[in-house]
Amino acid sequence: MILTVTLNTALDITHRVRALRPHATHRVTEVLQRPGGKGLNVARVLAALGHPVTVTGFVGGGTGRAVQDGLARTPGIVDALVPVQGATRRTIAVVDATGDTTQLNEPGPLVTPAEWSAFQEAYEVLLRSASAVALCGSLPPGVPVGAYAGLIRTARTLAVPVLLDTSGEPLRRGVAARPDVVKPNAEELAELTGSHEPSRATRDARRRGAQAVVASLGPDGLLAHTPEGRWRATPPRRFRGNPTGAGDAVVAGLLSGLVEHLPWPDRLTRATALSAATVLAPTAGEFDQRAYDELRTQVAVTGEVSAA
Amino acid sequence: MILTVTLNTALDITHRVRALRPHATHRVTEVLQRPGGKGLNVARVLAALGHPVTVTGFVGGGTGRAVQDGLARTPGIVDALVPVQGATRRTIAVVDATGDTTQLNEPGPLVTPAEWSAFQEAYEVLLRSASAVALCGSLPPGVPVGAYAGLIRTARTLAVPVLLDTSGEPLRRGVAARPDVVKPNAEELAELTGSHEPSRATRDARRRGAQAVVASLGPDGLLAHTPEGRWRATPPRRFRGNPTGAGDAVVAGLLSGLVEHLPWPDRLTRATALSAATVLAPTAGEFDQRAYDELRTQVAVTGEVSAA
Repeated sequence: MILTVTLNTALDITHRVRALRPHATHRVTEVLQRPGGKGLNVARVLAALGHPVTVTGFVGGGTGRAVQDGLARTPGIVDALVPVQGATRRTIAVVDATGDTTQLNEPGPLVTPAEWSAFQEAYEVLLRSASAVALCGSLPPGVPVGAYAGLIRTARTLAVPVLLDTSGEPLRRGVAARPDVVKPNAEELAELTGSHEPSRATRDARRRGAQAVVASLGPDGLLAHTPEGRWRATPPRRFRGNPTGAGDAVVAGLLSGLVEHLPWPDRLTRATALSAATVLAPTAGEFDQRAYDELRTQVAVTGEVSAA
Repeated sequence: MILTVTLNTALDITHRVRALRPHATHRVTEVLQRPGGKGLNVARVLAALGHPVTVTGFVGGGTGRAVQDGLARTPGIVDALVPVQGATRRTIAVVDATGDTTQLNEPGPLVTPAEWSAFQEAYEVLLRSASAVALCGSLPPGVPVGAYAGLIRTARTLAVPVLLDTSGEPLRRGVAARPDVVKPNAEELAELTGSHEPSRATRDARRRGAQAVVASLGPDGLLAHTPEGRWRATPPRRFRGNPTGAGDAVVAGLLSGLVEHLPWPDRLTRATALSAATVLAPTAGEFDQRAYDELRTQVAVTGEVSAA
């Protein structure tokens, strides 16, 4: 199975309103809620692609129960979340009639040292039956900022390929622990390297320790620097839609391609097509299967294989 | 015990943010949550006054469990909520650094005819040990608009004094069933009677069936027309603060005074002081005990006893 780690899981709530006016009272016309946090989103896409997937991370409180109820209703996902005393955070997306979104993100639960230890033990056990692992998203309060670096070292010791998708200091420390793949977006990459020039920044991120770097450049597709070569994957056109979850779809595409031993250009094609099919889907964070099937034949990958 | 009915219970969530900007992403700096819906707020005040109180109404889903967990932590309140398949609604109050509030109210759960029947049976059983009952707030989808009228008739049959605090068509139909007390605010009273002149509107509401009408006029206090006489209760000054729950504090003051057989002027004094002490409390919906003790001696009640 593929393992995804979401230390800061969330209950993602969507509220539809006519228009959001500060200091007014609003009737919410529609409420949607589902398990959230990057690793859970990645798992949902992997499950839809037919890959057995196990999710771990922290979960707690009534919101945590709602997350676990949602996972139980999603075929193909095994729930191996670790309980904490604090409550899983909520995120609230208030969507108005124009489709614009106002986002409210609660802080995550305070994780105790004992809970962090319990997680690390559970993680190591899960890794023993994992073909690959993705470490995704922000860290809740109480988890040390070097957490991902430690989890990467554990995965490398057990020879499980590891992908890191986070930002800021956890990304900086994680990269130094030599993950197999990092997948920053343009902003995260610039923050890590100080360079806003994607090709230079991607090269620099490899020098900092990442074995392969796949930068997601929004509607411009992906830029990959890997030990096997460098490629650029471009969707057939720019798509308008909701970019929520597009980055998570890229991670799912890369991971599924990795465990299927696809060549890099095929992994990038899959990841780019999944990302565009997510932007096109009517529900945020889902992907449109028909659009995916069509786009897979239309992504352009250009680049060169390394001489080494 | 005093019974309060909240057919549309809520999980009240407060989110503190620096400033709410439509279409931006916000870090919530503080999250508070507690059981909500008017009848539960009334019960909290009654319990704080030392009155044994039982709450009923509908509760369901993960949000419903959070409501019940909150009630279990509130001393003096007995939980007799009736389970439904749908989920209890959330209300979200986004409070910015200036203290201004933006409110998002989810719709209530769809109540089935079988669930409504189960509630009516439970209500009748609870009434048999109740000294008074308050029917509070809006109706969730699926509950007939004449619901309160039916619940009032049941209470009258069992000789349990009944107070109604709702709005719109449920208020109009409820008043016609001759409740002992209705407590509209100025807006609800104007909607019921078509008159914006409080004294005329209060008289008119009695003609429509209510035996006593207590209109809450915000910072101007209360206006009461009862079979025993007419009074006006005025706080010593206008208070600045958060009016959330001030109306529920009035209901708690009136009900507690009723079961203690206090004369009307004393009930109105208590209700006015509780309401002002709620506006003054730092936490929305709580009342400030010291302010209440002080204000009780400062409320002015003027009026006349009926000749009858």
